Amino acid sequence: MVERREVEVAVVGAGFAGLAAAHALCEAGIDTVVVEARDRVGGRVLNHRLADGRVVEVGGQWIGPTQDRMYALARELGVETYPTPTTGDSILLLDGREYRFAGGLPKLNPAVLLDYGQAMKRLDRMAAKVPLDAPWNAPDADRLDGQTLESWMRRNVRTGSARKLLALGVDAVFATEPGTLSLLWTLFYLHSGGNFDRLLSTRNGAQQDRFVGGSQLLAERMAARLPDGVLQLDAPVRRVDQNGDAVMLECGRLLVRARRAIVTVPPAVQARIDFTPSLPADRAQLLQRMPHGSVIKCMAVYDEPWWRAEGLDGQGVDTEGPVGVTFDNTPFDPSVEGDPPGVLLAFLEGDHARALSGVKPEERKRAVIGSLVKLFGPKAADPVDYVDLDWSAEEWTRGCYGAHTPPGVLTRYGPALRRPVGNVHWAGTETAEHWAGYMDGAVESGERAANEVLTALA
Amino acid sequence: MVERREVEVAVVGAGFAGLAAAHALCEAGIDTVVVEARDRVGGRVLNHRLADGRVVEVGGQWIGPTQDRMYALARELGVETYPTPTTGDSILLLDGREYRFAGGLPKLNPAVLLDYGQAMKRLDRMAAKVPLDAPWNAPDADRLDGQTLESWMRRNVRTGSARKLLALGVDAVFATEPGTLSLLWTLFYLHSGGNFDRLLSTRNGAQQDRFVGGSQLLAERMAARLPDGVLQLDAPVRRVDQNGDAVMLECGRLLVRARRAIVTVPPAVQARIDFTPSLPADRAQLLQRMPHGSVIKCMAVYDEPWWRAEGLDGQGVDTEGPVGVTFDNTPFDPSVEGDPPGVLLAFLEGDHARALSGVKPEERKRAVIGSLVKLFGPKAADPVDYVDLDWSAEEWTRGCYGAHTPPGVLTRYGPALRRPVGNVHWAGTETAEHWAGYMDGAVESGERAANEVLTALA
Repeated sequence: MVERREVEVAVVGAGFAGLAAAHALCEAGIDTVVVEARDRVGGRVLNHRLADGRVVEVGGQWIGPTQDRMYALARELGVETYPTPTTGDSILLLDGREYRFAGGLPKLNPAVLLDYGQAMKRLDRMAAKVPLDAPWNAPDADRLDGQTLESWMRRNVRTGSARKLLALGVDAVFATEPGTLSLLWTLFYLHSGGNFDRLLSTRNGAQQDRFVGGSQLLAERMAARLPDGVLQLDAPVRRVDQNGDAVMLECGRLLVRARRAIVTVPPAVQARIDFTPSLPADRAQLLQRMPHGSVIKCMAVYDEPWWRAEGLDGQGVDTEGPVGVTFDNTPFDPSVEGDPPGVLLAFLEGDHARALSGVKPEERKRAVIGSLVKLFGPKAADPVDYVDLDWSAEEWTRGCYGAHTPPGVLTRYGPALRRPVGNVHWAGTETAEHWAGYMDGAVESGERAANEVLTALA
Repeated sequence: MVERREVEVAVVGAGFAGLAAAHALCEAGIDTVVVEARDRVGGRVLNHRLADGRVVEVGGQWIGPTQDRMYALARELGVETYPTPTTGDSILLLDGREYRFAGGLPKLNPAVLLDYGQAMKRLDRMAAKVPLDAPWNAPDADRLDGQTLESWMRRNVRTGSARKLLALGVDAVFATEPGTLSLLWTLFYLHSGGNFDRLLSTRNGAQQDRFVGGSQLLAERMAARLPDGVLQLDAPVRRVDQNGDAVMLECGRLLVRARRAIVTVPPAVQARIDFTPSLPADRAQLLQRMPHGSVIKCMAVYDEPWWRAEGLDGQGVDTEGPVGVTFDNTPFDPSVEGDPPGVLLAFLEGDHARALSGVKPEERKRAVIGSLVKLFGPKAADPVDYVDLDWSAEEWTRGCYGAHTPPGVLTRYGPALRRPVGNVHWAGTETAEHWAGYMDGAVESGERAANEVLTALA
């Protein structure tokens, strides 16, 4: 039985981009439907409830300074934030040595520190010149886009240790390696979030704060404030037809007819929708050229955050892997009684995620726990609970944290990224100017696309 | 009305790979069906009949030495070959100068010739070390795959003119620019076809010979020799389901149940098929990372091949574009009476194809004819007929000549290229060891996949 809906605007995807777009449209009195493939909202943001009732996130979770849209949204929706713990020492494993350090950087060989610091500074200086609304107009864009970040690193980073640290930082931000990234895309992305250090940092950085109740709570509250019937779950869009004077969207059991549509799903998911007439060649080829990163987010749950008593903040960095970086992810939630369990969050990123993507769950868990033991000692060996999620294997996401462009794409296809095709508009965090790849960018993109549509309908 | 078919093997795609696979299977007595989305066979190979009844190709057309599979196939199918004309002078436009030359290279500045020759030699030397069955095992594979061909050229090609010539050769072979290609992929591809010079050459190269009646005639004869009912046109595969003990293929009005399947369609088309269960993450992410080149194949038809009387062979090279390279494409067909018209073939490749992809047909024609006049003089200005095809806009191809990998993909995802997933096997010219990207490679890949299936079923 096919249900038919006729609306002014159809929004595809109920992640932050889609929910923000729908809110803006509904506020303006526009009859809107949001069609979402999954049986839940949030997209790349997903809560997981622990045994004690507290929540951790198996998807995107943090916000930090200058992500003003997300802080405002949290206030609007009555969601509190709390800081990621930074009290205590962090651990770095590099070149077979362990460094225990507090705040800033460990006491490495000064030549390595200088090398690393200079590389970051140079990247930031180049990044600042990349226009966020049109990175393809950056000075020397062709040359920057014609090479990988790795090529730049080989010329500009002298010490092997600094290269390893930098590569690990890249993995932590992009979930892929410097040899896969366009230098121009890298610079755009760093500028989009401010600078490299801000993307990497907890204190005063993109990992600074968390949401009480988990980040998906915001998406759920955004969904709840939409008028009844706007949100349609279990409605995967297979086909978008603009042959007539309307946009027809086939979403499984639901057939939507709309004057305009906003597609917010990530590039590799978009690439699988049938558009008729076919998308213009530049848009179609762009969608062949925005691969998603590879990340498996893993959490080990313990009776308590025992590392705190040892003076550790739970932040670990291991350039050998498989786990590259860790955080204390112990949930704070005053509405739940009793002490929380201790949670160590461990990321498998890029090559490490790829290597552990196809293996048996037990094998992956063993590898992750092994990494935690290497970083934090034998107490890490026996978690009471363990959870992970391989985002590359998620049909409706196909890889996290986000999409990137390999060399030669941004300069050739970038202008097609936000340019509407007929009555179809494009959103999603990859289309944001600020905090592209983050929740904040998703909200920006949804609001921008909603404005485009409001202007067009006015 | 859904029609159901139960077979031993389903082959997806009726290009050379699919037709070769089906032939091998049928010869072995295996009950086979070939499902093809289009209403024709040939895939990236397509004949176009001129007004006089002779045929030119708007898709792949040439074969050359060491493409033994294609020569053998032509003999088997009773299709004659004839040489591409090479009598007369060629034209090169470079740095605002016109060079008219016969055989080999024009009289350029010796420093440029040396530079160009050395670059070709170095690339060939590196290419020879790349194992065709596993390019990711090449010596120093990570370093080669971590950079673009452009990065290599900036370090190794000193003169701007040699770089322009080389970039044009790359465009002619890959239909994309050096800044988009992994150096490792480039080397694999050169080795796969022999060496760079062989890929670029007419005499003794990949453009040496043509087929009487057009290259699609071979595909049509391959289709005709399959048992009745094997080939199903207008049957686009939308879904491949391996949840049960069989492979179920939803192809529009046709539902096929098979023990094994061979998918031969190119990567960006494969990426749009729904596989259930989802493809393993490495295969799924590989399909996000094999973009197709951009080419528009254009032909201007004149009353006669007038350039021959002027001592020209119709081969032109223009580093400025929009047309990069041209050929005399006058058809030879003794079965048609009267003298043939003269046909100049002009390629819009890479950036030039992208720039002229979305424009009005008249504008594109004007740009192409303008290029031909620049190369061959005012007689080129008034063709009696003109035809072109933008392969990026073809729904069931999505870009030609073939797919390539940007940096960092071959070393990470290469092993997933041919590895079967359950009972589904992979073919298509991109999976070939020899002449990957060419008709010959397509045939190799189909035969290889058929052998895999025959072994599995035995």
